Amino acid sequence: MTVGDFAGIVAPDADAASAARERQKSLTKPAGSLGRLEDLSVWVAACQGVCPPRQFERARVVVFAGDHGVAAAGVSAYPPEVTGQMVANIDAGGAAVNVMAQAAGASVRVVDVAVDCDEPLTPAIGAHKVRRSSANLGIEDPLTADEAHAAVRAGRLIADEEVDAGADLLIAGDMGIGNTTAAAALVAAITGTEPVAVVGRGTGIDDAGWMRKTTAVRNAMYRAGRHAGDPMALLQTCGGADLAAIAGFCAQAAARRTPLLLDGVVVTAAALVADQLAPGAQQWWQAGHRSTEPAHGFALARLGLEPIVDLKMRLGEGTGALVALPIVRAAVATLASMATFDEASVTGRDL
Amino acid sequence: MTVGDFAGIVAPDADAASAARERQKSLTKPAGSLGRLEDLSVWVAACQGVCPPRQFERARVVVFAGDHGVAAAGVSAYPPEVTGQMVANIDAGGAAVNVMAQAAGASVRVVDVAVDCDEPLTPAIGAHKVRRSSANLGIEDPLTADEAHAAVRAGRLIADEEVDAGADLLIAGDMGIGNTTAAAALVAAITGTEPVAVVGRGTGIDDAGWMRKTTAVRNAMYRAGRHAGDPMALLQTCGGADLAAIAGFCAQAAARRTPLLLDGVVVTAAALVADQLAPGAQQWWQAGHRSTEPAHGFALARLGLEPIVDLKMRLGEGTGALVALPIVRAAVATLASMATFDEASVTGRDL
Repeated sequence: MTVGDFAGIVAPDADAASAARERQKSLTKPAGSLGRLEDLSVWVAACQGVCPPRQFERARVVVFAGDHGVAAAGVSAYPPEVTGQMVANIDAGGAAVNVMAQAAGASVRVVDVAVDCDEPLTPAIGAHKVRRSSANLGIEDPLTADEAHAAVRAGRLIADEEVDAGADLLIAGDMGIGNTTAAAALVAAITGTEPVAVVGRGTGIDDAGWMRKTTAVRNAMYRAGRHAGDPMALLQTCGGADLAAIAGFCAQAAARRTPLLLDGVVVTAAALVADQLAPGAQQWWQAGHRSTEPAHGFALARLGLEPIVDLKMRLGEGTGALVALPIVRAAVATLASMATFDEASVTGRDL
Repeated sequence: MTVGDFAGIVAPDADAASAARERQKSLTKPAGSLGRLEDLSVWVAACQGVCPPRQFERARVVVFAGDHGVAAAGVSAYPPEVTGQMVANIDAGGAAVNVMAQAAGASVRVVDVAVDCDEPLTPAIGAHKVRRSSANLGIEDPLTADEAHAAVRAGRLIADEEVDAGADLLIAGDMGIGNTTAAAALVAAITGTEPVAVVGRGTGIDDAGWMRKTTAVRNAMYRAGRHAGDPMALLQTCGGADLAAIAGFCAQAAARRTPLLLDGVVVTAAALVADQLAPGAQQWWQAGHRSTEPAHGFALARLGLEPIVDLKMRLGEGTGALVALPIVRAAVATLASMATFDEASVTGRDL
């Protein structure tokens, strides 16, 4: 498997989508009255290639953890050692992603792509590790070309592992102090937006921190300037190993015809790259939520995705996708299980 | 029990709310990063009077069914017999409310308050029946004063029955051809809004139907004009038995210190009346969703409630509250079950 062989992205099944739209009209409710839920149900049916769709039996969150050298520049409200500590917290089941996954009927895997630690927490967690921390994108390229390729490949392999293990819905999550700086840089570079417009408060930085973050993003964009149409070069110059792995994961989900829910700004920035790596992959994704990070809005607009909820969340880890998962489940359940007008002997619409 | 004795609405527990806000700061995530979920968790803790809050064990939807004489004026896309047919569909488990309740971990009860049928579907469903259809509010008062009182009292008794049976979260739903006309009239009368601004498409009427609906609302508002500050008179002149029962139900939930999720325009119109009957009741409610009916937005604004989701739904039955229930559950779960910084040995925020 090489990084670039995504030519085979197939669109979700149009016949199943048509059948789902027709079935929606037969259910005991005014036509269209379930709003977005009807659209989501059609999307799931199309992704599964069957109507009515099946309820998800193995929804799976993968949290991609990585440190970022730019954290040393003071762009986060938390110190870098939190990344590794949170990997342990996620592995132990104590983080928000664990609690919300359990509530939504999903399971969680955490992957150390580039955490700055001597040894991965466990061999399994570190099985796809690319390096110790990505380099400081405010000063230099965060990755070499080889590392960028290795990270994208790692994400693809992880998606394959999960789909092969039976995952029928994938969620990408992130954990990494400094990762919203890389995300903002990628979004700014790809959408051609000014740094001051995309840079947000991340975990909650003050004004001085925001200025340092904006400076770092501007420096990264300067290096990325020559590579606007080259997704691998963008990951190398203003991304990071975790974002590259997420990009590979999102693209491979589409290649494997598996629906995926995007999370917040980090995952969506990586998804922007993934849709360049694998044109058409976006059809296999829904945006779980809209976060408060400004770069997220630019990325969603570029992908043409409308978030399912807007709850002013900005936590990452996959939590913004997980809060939307029960809504997607409700969409599937209504299309699959509601009675039709005929079945329930309910009179239809007046003509 | 008389209708007016709601003087004793107590506010949710401020100490539990403070404890919840403090506990949120100790959890392994950036402060405030769960956004609206944090606010919802504080609200549940305050309603339960305990921190951390307990997960809901008996979330209960009550669907209030009633016909409206105004349906004869051609204000709906569906014929009036659908109300009774849908009561049977809900009782049989085939409606959207049933499927979504199952997905969200809630149970459903349907109540015939004023369905236009010879006999209620079952004695239990008809135990609180007030009359056969409310009268045509486009022509005359839909209820007598006695009927309005009986309907509010029925809603209160139903809330008592549910709380006494262990319900720890209540959801009010509606089913009734023509009921969005009554809801629009109530909202217009209480908020002083022009009929053309509040009247929407309901189940999907055409332009001529919309004009008939607007005319009916204007006629009802004319009769209601003298009663702006009198909630019982408003229910009598431009409500209906089902809306009156929902008002009693929402008010009594607050009186019984039980949190409640509002659904769409019909329930929220009734809630506007309930907050007049029982000042302060609004503190015990959250708005599940924002529907596409214009009157809903006016009612939510008057109550000062921000809907949890906006999914362009307009089905009623309680479905707009049920789509939000998993989000409230996630709020409770995160506050109750996430690890603290100390427990997980995660370093806190840089000072």
